[in-house]
Amino acid sequence: MADQTVDQTALDVEALMLDMGRRARSAARPLAFADTNAKDKALLAMADAIDAAKADILAANALDMERARENGISGSFLDRLLLNEARLNGIAEGIRAIAALKDPVGETIAAWDRPNGLKIESVRTPLGVIGVIYESRPNVTADAGALCLKAGNAVILRGGTDSLHSSRAIHACLTAGLKAAGLPQDAIQLVPVADRAAVGAMLTGLDGAIDVIVPRGGKSLVARVQSEARVPVFAHLEGLCHIYVDATADIEMAKKIVVNAKMRRTGVCGAAETLLIDSAAIATHLMPLMEALTEAGCEIRASAAVLKVHPGFKPATEEDWRTEYLDAIISVAIVDGVSGAIDHIAHYSSHHTEAILSEDAKAVERFFNEVDSAILLHNASTQFADGGEFGMGAEIGIATGKMHARGPVGVEQLTSFNYRVHGTGQTRP
Amino acid sequence: MADQTVDQTALDVEALMLDMGRRARSAARPLAFADTNAKDKALLAMADAIDAAKADILAANALDMERARENGISGSFLDRLLLNEARLNGIAEGIRAIAALKDPVGETIAAWDRPNGLKIESVRTPLGVIGVIYESRPNVTADAGALCLKAGNAVILRGGTDSLHSSRAIHACLTAGLKAAGLPQDAIQLVPVADRAAVGAMLTGLDGAIDVIVPRGGKSLVARVQSEARVPVFAHLEGLCHIYVDATADIEMAKKIVVNAKMRRTGVCGAAETLLIDSAAIATHLMPLMEALTEAGCEIRASAAVLKVHPGFKPATEEDWRTEYLDAIISVAIVDGVSGAIDHIAHYSSHHTEAILSEDAKAVERFFNEVDSAILLHNASTQFADGGEFGMGAEIGIATGKMHARGPVGVEQLTSFNYRVHGTGQTRP
Repeated sequence: MADQTVDQTALDVEALMLDMGRRARSAARPLAFADTNAKDKALLAMADAIDAAKADILAANALDMERARENGISGSFLDRLLLNEARLNGIAEGIRAIAALKDPVGETIAAWDRPNGLKIESVRTPLGVIGVIYESRPNVTADAGALCLKAGNAVILRGGTDSLHSSRAIHACLTAGLKAAGLPQDAIQLVPVADRAAVGAMLTGLDGAIDVIVPRGGKSLVARVQSEARVPVFAHLEGLCHIYVDATADIEMAKKIVVNAKMRRTGVCGAAETLLIDSAAIATHLMPLMEALTEAGCEIRASAAVLKVHPGFKPATEEDWRTEYLDAIISVAIVDGVSGAIDHIAHYSSHHTEAILSEDAKAVERFFNEVDSAILLHNASTQFADGGEFGMGAEIGIATGKMHARGPVGVEQLTSFNYRVHGTGQTRP
Repeated sequence: MADQTVDQTALDVEALMLDMGRRARSAARPLAFADTNAKDKALLAMADAIDAAKADILAANALDMERARENGISGSFLDRLLLNEARLNGIAEGIRAIAALKDPVGETIAAWDRPNGLKIESVRTPLGVIGVIYESRPNVTADAGALCLKAGNAVILRGGTDSLHSSRAIHACLTAGLKAAGLPQDAIQLVPVADRAAVGAMLTGLDGAIDVIVPRGGKSLVARVQSEARVPVFAHLEGLCHIYVDATADIEMAKKIVVNAKMRRTGVCGAAETLLIDSAAIATHLMPLMEALTEAGCEIRASAAVLKVHPGFKPATEEDWRTEYLDAIISVAIVDGVSGAIDHIAHYSSHHTEAILSEDAKAVERFFNEVDSAILLHNASTQFADGGEFGMGAEIGIATGKMHARGPVGVEQLTSFNYRVHGTGQTRP
């Protein structure tokens, strides 16, 4: 791992990044045709290596956590940075789950014959080289590395400075897995330096070496990536998720789902940030839901209409409707039925995940047809917005753009395809 | 159509474009839920309107052709600009073929259940608003407008200045079709001015109004779009297509296919530009193929190795291997079997379309697995690289990028999708 621990002071970041790009590109070619067994063997070896290196990884994470606290960093950020025995088990299991997934490369997506006798098939192919730029979550190092490998892609990982020790410790396990399976170790590279210039270099595409950039983090990171990137980007905006509670919603179910959607983990992008209550449900649903949230330790920011009925809550400002709290805070508004909910969501949503709680099939159908977000749920928690929960294995993130991938970006979303046409001498008239 | 024939001198292009963007965005909402019958009714009415307006369209095209000749424009460009009775019939039939296609919107792509009882489905949705920037081909106006409508998208069309009269005449027919079906006429807008600032405005996304840009034209246009666009782009690079003739290829089939791939229409992106001959086929295939091409009126640019065996041809320069002639010219090189062909293609191809002519299944398999282009053909002409020939109906173009769409961009490639999750009260543990 000498190349991963170079002396930063001696470093020419631009040259380092271009070299990483060249090495990723040359690793991508054999990877594209790598045997499924070899890729799975590498993945299982990575998971075992993580199990075996728990102590080292937790020690590295403790360093990162200590430094983060020194920098006075907030609750949800620390939650994302934190590793513990349970989360490490989850990371190893996530990699094993990816190994167990079907290899998408070479899969025939569709096949059809033409009247002239041409036989056409579309076949999944790797994307090539993927650049992943993320922030504090160290588990992204493992998830992204494993997913890209399973899909036959080489990957350049650029984790947050705050999680560099944790990511390095995890990356060492990934490299060990590649080695054990005889796959090129350049298939999964971690940018070894904290210098932000590395990000700028990746956004240029490293001289054509990077096929797609996956930004995995907060609004400001994604905004920078989208404005500077000279290569395609899987837009992953914030998860400003809404729950709409219809007057027909079962109140007990609603309490359970709303509290889970907001409070299960406040730091994840699928956490609900805004609660929309049907104006016809003010008497029946509003207060019970706000009480359930308050009991669960959630701060409420209420709209003027809510305060008129139930004073005493902190008033919500215009800014609240646009804020992904990633914390134990929720904004609450009253809307005019499903139409009002659809309008509010169209105006404020990041098009990530929205839920409707209702027993009215017509309202659900309208919500599903007219809300333009990646994930829509009926009578279920927004915290199911997760590749693992969708059965895709781990995910790199939840794409909020509409191009190529939308919603959880799992192994299949990390592939492209091409058309293969089998002829017998056909010429075009 | 008053708004389509404003006085350019009085025009604030930026304001005009932003207004077109707003109108497209507001047309996109109802379009996304428009009934399939309404969309198909509009398409059939458009085709009928084109049949009825042939004289006007040909007169407008004659104006464009005359101006182009005055500007001393070249053969293949004129070929792309030219409309005649047959091509107009083709345009109308293309629209009818799109009407006959299955409506992709609302189609369930996949559906599965989770152990916790959640029922998940992925459903096709429109992309939203598509900006199409193209050059001289007036038929793109009809193809792009019809395809975007079928997929539930609003579209802003910016055709080449040289084809403005032709495009306006065709666009009038599209608008008539929308009107006949009671669909918003802003669903298909044509930029009414020649001012190039209109392109720059579209590339900014028109204040978030445009979801994706489709550049449809030559290398310089696509390069500008890719470098300036602030929204996702369907990269459509040039078609620098190769044909590799293996020593095992049937010579009569090869002559037929090579001549068709190069000469059927030299102005299309699927036209072959480089012929690669297996070094083991020099004695058997090289001269017969060059003679067939010469007889067909094709100029040959030969590599040094070719000239060593058959002097007298014009020598190919390094530039020739990188040139999309779009004319009756082909470069010819000798390569070391399928490996040499794969290497040459990897180095020079635009990753659009490549063909292998061979009776060796192993060579074909290697070519298909290792050549990373959108369309690969075995024993068939590269001129089949066409959405219609693939059975997709008309196409906007052939995407050479690997994201979202690759190869022919037809109605299905102009959609996105979302996930719809049906629960019964599930919360995430």
